Amino acid sequence: MNKESVGVVETKYFHIEEPIDLDSGEVIDEVTVAYETYGELNKEKSNAILICHALTGDAHAAGWHEGDKKPGWWEIVIGPGKALNTEKYFIICSNVLGGCKGTTGPSSINPKTGKEYGLDFPVITIGDMVKVQKKLIDSFNITQLAAIIGGSMGGMQVLEWMVSYPTMMKKAIPIATAAMSSPQQIAFNAVGRQSIFSDPHWKGGNYYESGVIPRNGLSLARMIAHITYLSDESMDIKFGRGLQDKDEISYDFSLDFQVESYLKHQGETFVKRFDANSYLYITKAVDLFDLSINDSLIDGFKNVEAKVQVLSVDSDWLYPTEQSTDIVTALNANNVDVSFSEIKSNYGHDAFLLEKGQLNYLFANFLSESVVEDLMMENIATIKADADVVEAAKLMLDRHVTHIPVVTDENKLIGIVTSWDLSKSIATDSNHLTDIMTTTVKYCNAGDTIEEIARHMRKFDISCLPVVDEDMVVLGLITTDQISNLLS
Amino acid sequence: MNKESVGVVETKYFHIEEPIDLDSGEVIDEVTVAYETYGELNKEKSNAILICHALTGDAHAAGWHEGDKKPGWWEIVIGPGKALNTEKYFIICSNVLGGCKGTTGPSSINPKTGKEYGLDFPVITIGDMVKVQKKLIDSFNITQLAAIIGGSMGGMQVLEWMVSYPTMMKKAIPIATAAMSSPQQIAFNAVGRQSIFSDPHWKGGNYYESGVIPRNGLSLARMIAHITYLSDESMDIKFGRGLQDKDEISYDFSLDFQVESYLKHQGETFVKRFDANSYLYITKAVDLFDLSINDSLIDGFKNVEAKVQVLSVDSDWLYPTEQSTDIVTALNANNVDVSFSEIKSNYGHDAFLLEKGQLNYLFANFLSESVVEDLMMENIATIKADADVVEAAKLMLDRHVTHIPVVTDENKLIGIVTSWDLSKSIATDSNHLTDIMTTTVKYCNAGDTIEEIARHMRKFDISCLPVVDEDMVVLGLITTDQISNLLS
Repeated sequence: MNKESVGVVETKYFHIEEPIDLDSGEVIDEVTVAYETYGELNKEKSNAILICHALTGDAHAAGWHEGDKKPGWWEIVIGPGKALNTEKYFIICSNVLGGCKGTTGPSSINPKTGKEYGLDFPVITIGDMVKVQKKLIDSFNITQLAAIIGGSMGGMQVLEWMVSYPTMMKKAIPIATAAMSSPQQIAFNAVGRQSIFSDPHWKGGNYYESGVIPRNGLSLARMIAHITYLSDESMDIKFGRGLQDKDEISYDFSLDFQVESYLKHQGETFVKRFDANSYLYITKAVDLFDLSINDSLIDGFKNVEAKVQVLSVDSDWLYPTEQSTDIVTALNANNVDVSFSEIKSNYGHDAFLLEKGQLNYLFANFLSESVVEDLMMENIATIKADADVVEAAKLMLDRHVTHIPVVTDENKLIGIVTSWDLSKSIATDSNHLTDIMTTTVKYCNAGDTIEEIARHMRKFDISCLPVVDEDMVVLGLITTDQISNLLS
Repeated sequence: MNKESVGVVETKYFHIEEPIDLDSGEVIDEVTVAYETYGELNKEKSNAILICHALTGDAHAAGWHEGDKKPGWWEIVIGPGKALNTEKYFIICSNVLGGCKGTTGPSSINPKTGKEYGLDFPVITIGDMVKVQKKLIDSFNITQLAAIIGGSMGGMQVLEWMVSYPTMMKKAIPIATAAMSSPQQIAFNAVGRQSIFSDPHWKGGNYYESGVIPRNGLSLARMIAHITYLSDESMDIKFGRGLQDKDEISYDFSLDFQVESYLKHQGETFVKRFDANSYLYITKAVDLFDLSINDSLIDGFKNVEAKVQVLSVDSDWLYPTEQSTDIVTALNANNVDVSFSEIKSNYGHDAFLLEKGQLNYLFANFLSESVVEDLMMENIATIKADADVVEAAKLMLDRHVTHIPVVTDENKLIGIVTSWDLSKSIATDSNHLTDIMTTTVKYCNAGDTIEEIARHMRKFDISCLPVVDEDMVVLGLITTDQISNLLS
């Protein structure tokens, strides 16, 4: 399968005509949503996947904007032949409410004043962001998304969707995220906001007219945040104590070390693409996020219906794995179908944007709807119970198989004989198949999902499973080799 | 032992008359060192302990300044009856070069201009700080310190002393520190400096005359740093998601959460007691710190002669335990007598200022020069090898002991018999001591240190050890109970 890009894409705009009631009690009259889509929505409208972006992300998740040098932020997983396969799925990604990448936010024009909102923009929540996304999804007449996927603040939106619109998605993948912001997470965001407030150019949020933005404050906020996105180890590998453009320490306050220079550059680049007020609103939404009800996350998740895959990153110290396992525990307590994997990476929090191989593998695996029928071998060799060992051995050699189901005259499964059983027959000098065949045989049905079967076979250390119908008539065989081939 | 304070103390000043050559190649002509001492220097000048303070610490480590509401920063370990016992030791603590608490730094008057140095102050290193401390120690005519102890940047000074003046200390305790600043540590310091540079009131460091200090910048730097001093868990315990002076979220940019308000307060308090330029110089010294030679820490530590106890804190993510074990490994490779303990605490990096019980225990244990002779029981019961089991049992009952050394006529140790051996004799129906006594008996000498013996007994799970002279003549017994009593 050729793994390509979706190519040149354009951001589209959706205008919400009716007022939106916010969690704060405020109302916002007009909202424009910037979004992109990749792939085609099928006739049944059942193949849509919503992607939710992180703190400073945007609607441009994949492909290339005309003339751009870099593709969308999640190009590694979205595109033809990738896990979020645009030949199969219709991918939607929108900029969040409060953002500055096309969706209405504090830098948008307030229709009441004809000027930028600034701090007149209402404080918003992750719930409000999701409410706006829901209107976009409704505009496609999609009644259930195949999946919702997102990392970091994107993961918070995924969790919010699961709770607020439980029937609106079949599957959900929250990554490197939390069901509530911890005090340490709030602390880092709070210091970022203070650094913007402290910049004299911020002017209480009314800096748009002056043409001078609070670059120092916003740049500092980004530098602080950027440290939290990387692991200690990844910084060691990337920079160590390397010096920047010099052979010796200069004994002044210029930027001696590469890591200093890198961070400064990150801050300076960021102010060119992001609005300081948006940064205030979005970090505040993250801080306010808390899905627990009366301090109980189990209560918070009581309505969840989606099938969920929770992912964390082992070296992520900003959103540590414990916050993900807290989610898993609370979902489990509600009998939600939930699985969990920890991505192995030294990238830290940023791994959810970088670990191409693991993300593609985990997504493909979880999204896969393959059933046994799609994969099983048909027209397989079977043998009757009254056959002798020599007959079984000849059949194995002839058909190049190691497993032969033993069946009745009506082709119903009563046992299985393997090359191992034949070896046993030599040792015990048995000639009859009934003496050596396994009768407590495990089997599966044609409609079982590959995922279930794979888990089952791993659990019982089985390499080959007969497939039967409801009358136990043997239909075929499925092997771990076939499953491995599918997954790779 | 009554654990008291050293009471009211005063900061003293030591003037260095001769110029000091700095690592940068610059020279500083006049340096004043602010310092405090507690306890009395003995006649042999052998009981002095130097305490090194952390980033924003000062010379006031213990006791009370007239009228103050809080004692010195390490009151928990310094004072009569505490581990740094002022009835036994002469404790010295000085403010570092570049500081703003009495020792010459960027806020001091430059004798050449009659104005504050500002950025004309030369960039200094941890090595320069230690060079200045050495001159203070020399002024007392102390030729060897009993110990040097410090945490965080104080630990860096301890390591620097070990390397630069290897014979100047008997023992050293670096705590929660590193032999070189990691890129993540540099990153946090660099962002702190940028926040000061970004404050318009900083004015290139020349803010002293204006009377307006760069409070926003310095306050932000402190807030960032303060997050790194606490663990995620301690913040959870201390604040959780508790709101500050409100029952509900206010949906504005006031400080909703207690953790926000706490950090803001930390920043605001800090600017009242610390100079912004000093913050620049001292964090820079920390960033420049690197004791490795040609990337080898083993080479860096090749001259160390002190006996070293390295301490880290399990929840410290700013100076993680790995940095301490790197120090231990490199010292071990140089055959330095080094021990290591990890303090169990959820306080994070700040634990080195807070974990009273563990710090006192570890310091006392390591500084203790007690030998077996000081503690052993003399005039103990012994028994001859030709005695029978009944005789041994009677002696045990009579003397209320569970261990009796078995000796020759010359009182030389040949074995030991315990109550456990006597039980064995019943089971095996043995009457002769020689059948049941332990002959591969472990023992110690009167001059062994309690620390060594305690480790030895723990290792072999022995509760009682005979003490012998060089001819194996039994002098007494030492038990783990006696050792425990000493340590508590």
